[in-house]
Amino acid sequence: MIDLNNTIVAVSTAQGAGAIAVVRLTGPESILICDRVFNAAKKGKRLTNQAANTIHFGSLMDNGKELDEVLVSIFKAPNSFTGENTVEVSCHGAPYIQQKVLELFIKNGAVMAAPGEFTQRAFLNGKMDLSQAEAVADLIASKSEAARRVALQQMKGGFSNELMRLRERLLNFISLIELELDFSEEDVEFADRQQLIDLINEIEQLLSKLLHSFSLGNAIKNGIPVAIVGHTNAGKSTLLNTILQEERAIVSDIHGTTRDVIEDTINIEGISFRFIDTAGIRKTTDTIENLGINRTFSKIESASIVVLMLDINDPDEKIHEAIAEVKDKMNADQKLIVAINKIDLLPPEEVEKRFNKTKFQDLSGTDTIISISAQKQTGIDQLSAELIKIINLKAVDNDEVIVTNARHYEALQRSHSSILRVVDGLQKGISGDFLAQDIREVLVFLGEITGGEIQTDEVLGNIFKNFCIGK
Amino acid sequence: MIDLNNTIVAVSTAQGAGAIAVVRLTGPESILICDRVFNAAKKGKRLTNQAANTIHFGSLMDNGKELDEVLVSIFKAPNSFTGENTVEVSCHGAPYIQQKVLELFIKNGAVMAAPGEFTQRAFLNGKMDLSQAEAVADLIASKSEAARRVALQQMKGGFSNELMRLRERLLNFISLIELELDFSEEDVEFADRQQLIDLINEIEQLLSKLLHSFSLGNAIKNGIPVAIVGHTNAGKSTLLNTILQEERAIVSDIHGTTRDVIEDTINIEGISFRFIDTAGIRKTTDTIENLGINRTFSKIESASIVVLMLDINDPDEKIHEAIAEVKDKMNADQKLIVAINKIDLLPPEEVEKRFNKTKFQDLSGTDTIISISAQKQTGIDQLSAELIKIINLKAVDNDEVIVTNARHYEALQRSHSSILRVVDGLQKGISGDFLAQDIREVLVFLGEITGGEIQTDEVLGNIFKNFCIGK
Repeated sequence: MIDLNNTIVAVSTAQGAGAIAVVRLTGPESILICDRVFNAAKKGKRLTNQAANTIHFGSLMDNGKELDEVLVSIFKAPNSFTGENTVEVSCHGAPYIQQKVLELFIKNGAVMAAPGEFTQRAFLNGKMDLSQAEAVADLIASKSEAARRVALQQMKGGFSNELMRLRERLLNFISLIELELDFSEEDVEFADRQQLIDLINEIEQLLSKLLHSFSLGNAIKNGIPVAIVGHTNAGKSTLLNTILQEERAIVSDIHGTTRDVIEDTINIEGISFRFIDTAGIRKTTDTIENLGINRTFSKIESASIVVLMLDINDPDEKIHEAIAEVKDKMNADQKLIVAINKIDLLPPEEVEKRFNKTKFQDLSGTDTIISISAQKQTGIDQLSAELIKIINLKAVDNDEVIVTNARHYEALQRSHSSILRVVDGLQKGISGDFLAQDIREVLVFLGEITGGEIQTDEVLGNIFKNFCIGK
Repeated sequence: MIDLNNTIVAVSTAQGAGAIAVVRLTGPESILICDRVFNAAKKGKRLTNQAANTIHFGSLMDNGKELDEVLVSIFKAPNSFTGENTVEVSCHGAPYIQQKVLELFIKNGAVMAAPGEFTQRAFLNGKMDLSQAEAVADLIASKSEAARRVALQQMKGGFSNELMRLRERLLNFISLIELELDFSEEDVEFADRQQLIDLINEIEQLLSKLLHSFSLGNAIKNGIPVAIVGHTNAGKSTLLNTILQEERAIVSDIHGTTRDVIEDTINIEGISFRFIDTAGIRKTTDTIENLGINRTFSKIESASIVVLMLDINDPDEKIHEAIAEVKDKMNADQKLIVAINKIDLLPPEEVEKRFNKTKFQDLSGTDTIISISAQKQTGIDQLSAELIKIINLKAVDNDEVIVTNARHYEALQRSHSSILRVVDGLQKGISGDFLAQDIREVLVFLGEITGGEIQTDEVLGNIFKNFCIGK
């Protein structure tokens, strides 16, 4: 349980050594606590007398000994991220110093912040609704252009504003229906049933659209899993290296990009693709009978897109068998790209002949076939284009509202189920009290998303525990 | 070569994901460049009109699209770290966002900062001397209390102030001596030889003291290497785990401490000890004949302190042999701590008897013997105390000037050699022009430390290339 009377402290910048680090305090005593240990470079200056949004140079003092030279930024309630008095201390970035600065503030009255507590306080102080608070975490975790855009849009309220406007209108209706109940003996109808039906339909359509957006949203947020499978010598690892290398070249000289991020993930036109390691396949023997993909079946299952690499020199039979075997393991929602590799080993006319000769009759309409040379980096652009084509990016480009959060998705599902009950009830002409009950349920589920309805500590705890400390 | 007409940009906080990150610009156009892409939350507000040391909330705009919500801090020349106009942009901490923010500023006229370029600019703009600039890097790299204190003291000029004061006085003398040369035919003596001798002696003593401090300074800066050696079953890894665990418990809940730092290094009373892995010893067989330390000889050589772990149940012969073998590999500067382990397996009176019976006659006056139980964590405090006793911390506690930098050490050595030549010359009564020449040399070497003498680009480049980017 968050106690807003406490002043909390945390390092807000990334872990490890940097040139500088920012230690943040928020809460009623933040300025006071910092003032206790701050020795301004300008003699006699006290932080407690300073204006909001100003920066002050000086030293942090620990028991009369100087700990570090720092810059102190002052923010005052309600004009801060949390809505409280806030102090940001920019110190030298040694982890050791960060630790000592934290300890100094804790010794002087601050308590260690819980994960996400800064954002939770912003929520509790009415600076943002719950879906906006969650978007803050998404923004911090965003690894691609699409993820960043969707999170930023949601943080600015794009997501919840629309829902809450409709919820507000529904709330008006329920007041009218409940008024009817008070006058039930007179059989009046304050709530225009047709208008209600229109509103309910509008809400149902929005919910459907939002629910539908989740598969894209989830892909944007977590990256799209792509399994590269094929025979042992088909050139899978060469392809992966080629794809990763190109991206690495772009990002490698930019400070702040960790290797973790790009290890197996690449961004193509702002979308993250997570390439699933199918290294296990290499250990099996390379015979026509044994495709060697036994170990990669589970990888195929967890992928949204399967890239099947085949060698253009393989006999038709081997190619057809491989396609059949992989398709057998795939479900209808998964997309298959067949990449015929090693075209550099044949003259172009031979490649064309080969493509004409092999019918690829096993491929269905949603499958794609392309010819590449992983070695010579031919056709890689086309592969990227095929990958990106599978994802519908128009929604992102148009800044449409996209649901990325599993909790929202579940609440939307519940809202949708209950709104279908309302639709059903309206069609059957059920009585006003039953109707009111069903609508109340819709209101509760919609409220869950923004946190407008009262949230239990448990729910809030679950949401914020996954935040990083310092935000 | 640094071009101060450029405006540079870098991420100044640690690599990786954090709640926030700070991107810093410095140079003549820093405020202008940021203003180009900044859309203040308060309509019509322009960064170019804002006062120094103020903070502004708004959005970074990339081609009309919002990139992130940020806080922008403004600093104006000469009142900034670099002495130039400086802007600090606090953005959301996703590595992806950091990269986009960097790219945005580069697109709008900034250039990527070289490692240490912020600090080098501070030096070039006269905000600090060279030894202070180097101390900034040391402060950022500090991993212990002693390292932090020594670096902070040096950053505040403690180190160079004293030297420069003496250098100033020497400069006066040389003017007088050179004046004598102008009047050489008249055989006058403007420079009081006794005063000169006193000053030279004072400088020589200071240089000696500073040179002497380097072994401590180097240990403080880089940590004191400790090798734990012993028989296979002596309990070395248990001891290491016990020591590391205790420390881990202290630091593990503090954000900002990386695992790397504490993996093999622990801080005891503000001093870093680097425990050297002697894991190889475990692979050998455990016989009296084969101590199994063959593989750890090189580890012993690189250690300042060797902790030899022995089993209290081992026969005297085995113990003596081990001590003799280890001491044979150690030089006079290395300290030996013999830790007799597994005392928990015997009743206390047996332990005492055992210690009395075994004479440990092989140990010299500087060696120490203690009894411990790595398993039961008995005697670990005493081991820590012995480790720390070996290091003379009085100098740190008294905030004495301690040399930690190898470049300074070398310049001090050269200064010292040249000052000894001056002493020699004074004793021999050499002529004024030779004396002046020798003193000139002292001045040059002393000037190298603070960068007061003209530094070549190459020297500066070598010094700053090891800095992190963003500082």
